[in-house]
Amino acid sequence: MQQLQQSFSVNYSYGVFFTKHLFELTNPYLRDFLASQVAPGYTKKILVIADEGVISKHPALPEQIETYCAIISGFQLAAPVIIIPGGESVKNDEALFYKLADTIDQYGIDRHSFVIAIGGGAVLDLVGFAAAVSHRGVRHIRIPTTVLSQNDSGVGVKNGINYKGKKNFLGTFAPPAAVFNDSHFLTTLDIEDWRSGIAEAVKVALIKDASFFDWLEMNALPLAEGNLPAMETLVYRCAELHMQHIGGAGDPFESGSSRPLDFGHWSAHKLEQLTNFSLRHGEAVSIGMAVDSVYASLLGMLDSTAASRIVRLLEQLQLPVYHPLLEMQDGMPSAVIKGLQEFREHLGGRLTICLLKAIGQATEVHEMDVALLNKAVENIKSRYANS
Amino acid sequence: MQQLQQSFSVNYSYGVFFTKHLFELTNPYLRDFLASQVAPGYTKKILVIADEGVISKHPALPEQIETYCAIISGFQLAAPVIIIPGGESVKNDEALFYKLADTIDQYGIDRHSFVIAIGGGAVLDLVGFAAAVSHRGVRHIRIPTTVLSQNDSGVGVKNGINYKGKKNFLGTFAPPAAVFNDSHFLTTLDIEDWRSGIAEAVKVALIKDASFFDWLEMNALPLAEGNLPAMETLVYRCAELHMQHIGGAGDPFESGSSRPLDFGHWSAHKLEQLTNFSLRHGEAVSIGMAVDSVYASLLGMLDSTAASRIVRLLEQLQLPVYHPLLEMQDGMPSAVIKGLQEFREHLGGRLTICLLKAIGQATEVHEMDVALLNKAVENIKSRYANS
Ligand SMILES: NC(=O)c1ccc[n+]([C@@H]2O[C@H](COP(=O)([O-])OP(=O)(O)OC[C@H]3O[C@@H](n4cnc5c(N)ncnc54)[C@H](O)[C@@H]3O)[C@@H](O)[C@H]2O)c1
Ligand SMILES: NC(=O)c1ccc[n+]([C@@H]2O[C@H](COP(=O)([O-])OP(=O)(O)OC[C@H]3O[C@@H](n4cnc5c(N)ncnc54)[C@H](O)[C@@H]3O)[C@@H](O)[C@H]2O)c1
Ligand SMILES: [Zn+2]
Ligand SMILES: [Zn+2]
Repeated sequence: MQQLQQSFSVNYSYGVFFTKHLFELTNPYLRDFLASQVAPGYTKKILVIADEGVISKHPALPEQIETYCAIISGFQLAAPVIIIPGGESVKNDEALFYKLADTIDQYGIDRHSFVIAIGGGAVLDLVGFAAAVSHRGVRHIRIPTTVLSQNDSGVGVKNGINYKGKKNFLGTFAPPAAVFNDSHFLTTLDIEDWRSGIAEAVKVALIKDASFFDWLEMNALPLAEGNLPAMETLVYRCAELHMQHIGGAGDPFESGSSRPLDFGHWSAHKLEQLTNFSLRHGEAVSIGMAVDSVYASLLGMLDSTAASRIVRLLEQLQLPVYHPLLEMQDGMPSAVIKGLQEFREHLGGRLTICLLKAIGQATEVHEMDVALLNKAVENIKSRYANS
Repeated sequence: MQQLQQSFSVNYSYGVFFTKHLFELTNPYLRDFLASQVAPGYTKKILVIADEGVISKHPALPEQIETYCAIISGFQLAAPVIIIPGGESVKNDEALFYKLADTIDQYGIDRHSFVIAIGGGAVLDLVGFAAAVSHRGVRHIRIPTTVLSQNDSGVGVKNGINYKGKKNFLGTFAPPAAVFNDSHFLTTLDIEDWRSGIAEAVKVALIKDASFFDWLEMNALPLAEGNLPAMETLVYRCAELHMQHIGGAGDPFESGSSRPLDFGHWSAHKLEQLTNFSLRHGEAVSIGMAVDSVYASLLGMLDSTAASRIVRLLEQLQLPVYHPLLEMQDGMPSAVIKGLQEFREHLGGRLTICLLKAIGQATEVHEMDVALLNKAVENIKSRYANS
């Protein structure tokens, strides 16, 4: 027998820019980035795909984008801004995925051109996936417009769509070319979408940064009520913690089973699915974190004061901490708890659940005690009923 | 404005094993590889998907595989061997892609399990793509069974399917977990498929290794006639040269425009499409290399003796060097030549065509002279008519 060994590394790098009014003519950030990408003797194309939910609140945006792009030399807008629906349902829409592939084909968007996606996490996930598999990967720029996408999904390396009700079953790891977080977009969010995104900040504080958790406690009221400067601070720190984990923990494309950033997510994924996505991602994560925090305290792993602080913060942020689907049905494990197995399959490998040892400190377990989980649910339910 | 910078590297490594009778119980290679992947406390799954064209010639294979896998501890065959059609048409079959995603889902194949694909380049490209996007990437093992897939596509990092007649429009870069080249499979190939795969060896010799080209000239007759030991030597050296380029040229995922491994391919892709894939990939590449070699000699870039040696070798290998679709139609550029633009789009960036300065030495040009291309076509046509 003979053997050949292949071995190489691929370097990825991208900037995440925090700004306001990205497409005002005086704002240099996108223009400067594109200028750094110019190729001599060849005009690169830009294809912009935007979330209808954003455009409905910022109706002048398409024209603004067209004006902004018209003066970038070495680049050319391939088509007028393309508007697609927003929200989770776009990730269930196979026809829309193919429409995007067709559009990339039709306008001759090649591997050196840029697809720019503007929108919430759902639109970014869909467009990112379409770009990642067209021509084996067209460059893409993300302009996240929700709290969640600016502080978590949009600054990371994943994309995906749902398949037969399975959340993110189809997707890839595909780092963006650049990310532009424009905080002005956040001002037009529904208050529930605004709050929902805060859940990911609580999550990353809980697993990584106790002092950020303290800050969240101190700022819970302004954050819950829509204060933009407080939110800008939150988004920046939360994005930074996510990015540090992805770039610094040695497993950016998640080939292992350790996934601390998925704290609270095993039940969240199932809750989103069982409620047909009427529960927002962040709302589901909030519930999931409450359950897993109380569970850890019942396990004796986490101080019970800490668990109470966590649940209280989520409540102050006006995020849900409980859902009836968590309850046992006629003595049988709840539908959510049955989702543990599915979660293991999506992550792969041995069941690995992130739990808290303290605020700011995560650990991993490989089994969950269903009776104790039910007790945690009961515990939160009684608290919830009394509040 | 604030800015965060993300930056990380991802390491990829895999072995390519050359063996014979991989699934005989005494053959340790696949078993040893899997043993190196065992995870404590958790049984990993294996899903095997095989090319009907292979199974029809090796009908005992599924049972052999089941026996072989039954004794690998830490692993479990998730299902009986799944047989799918082979050949290019599977890459046009969207329903089959979804069937594979369903199968991965149905048998609970997770990111730590392995999808093993056995077959020609078309089956490997399709299954590789399905594995690469399911759960954002399930590990996959390739067992290529054709000359082309053993010496080129199967040892590389790409996968893909056709979309609306556009060759490989949807796909990703996804290195395999391991590759097993079993030369016994080659003995059952149609002679045309056997010969077609030799074209990629001629290609890589032409751009990288003059002495390999000499060797091909000396062994043209046994190679054309199905001699296995000669073919084993060819496959090993050709795979090695491809792998060295992918791993060593600094751009494994092709983010630049330089693509020497695509020598002869711009017209080949278009010829395949225009003939509805009745022309094999290697046959089309053979024609494409003949055209671009004669073109380079007309340009004064390549010695005309070298161009003649190239065309002669292809003819000795019983590969086609000419196709009527190359000809002008009523004074208009041929349909193939119009494909230059599409090729540029698929690669992206500025038009970049690999041409030869000498046997074993490639260079790049950024424009092609259509009149001279037509002359090259005429030149080969007259040679072809006289032979
Ligand atoms: N890729 C990842 O790593 C990752 C990580 C976490 C979450 N996600 C995904 O992100 C998605 C959730 O994203 P989301 O929370 O941003 O919600 P979303 O994308 O579903 O958007 C929520 C709603 O807000 C609207 N909207 C967006 N921006 C707006 C604005 N500026 N003003 C007014 N309305 C606006 C949208 O049209 C939509 O109706 C989920 O699909 C989740 O799976 C992905
Ligand atoms: N991913 C890449 O980097 C890359 C590179 C080059 C080519 N390709 C792709 O590879 C494909 C061509 O692959 P191919 O040349 O292997 O042809 P193929 O996969 O089309 O197979 C040709 C025929 O041989 C049959 N067959 C396969 N193995 C056999 C065996 N051992 N005995 C008898 N019959 C057998 C198949 O069923 C099929 O009918 C094209 O789609 C091409 O685009 C991919
Ligand atoms: Zn999340
Ligand atoms: Zn080829």
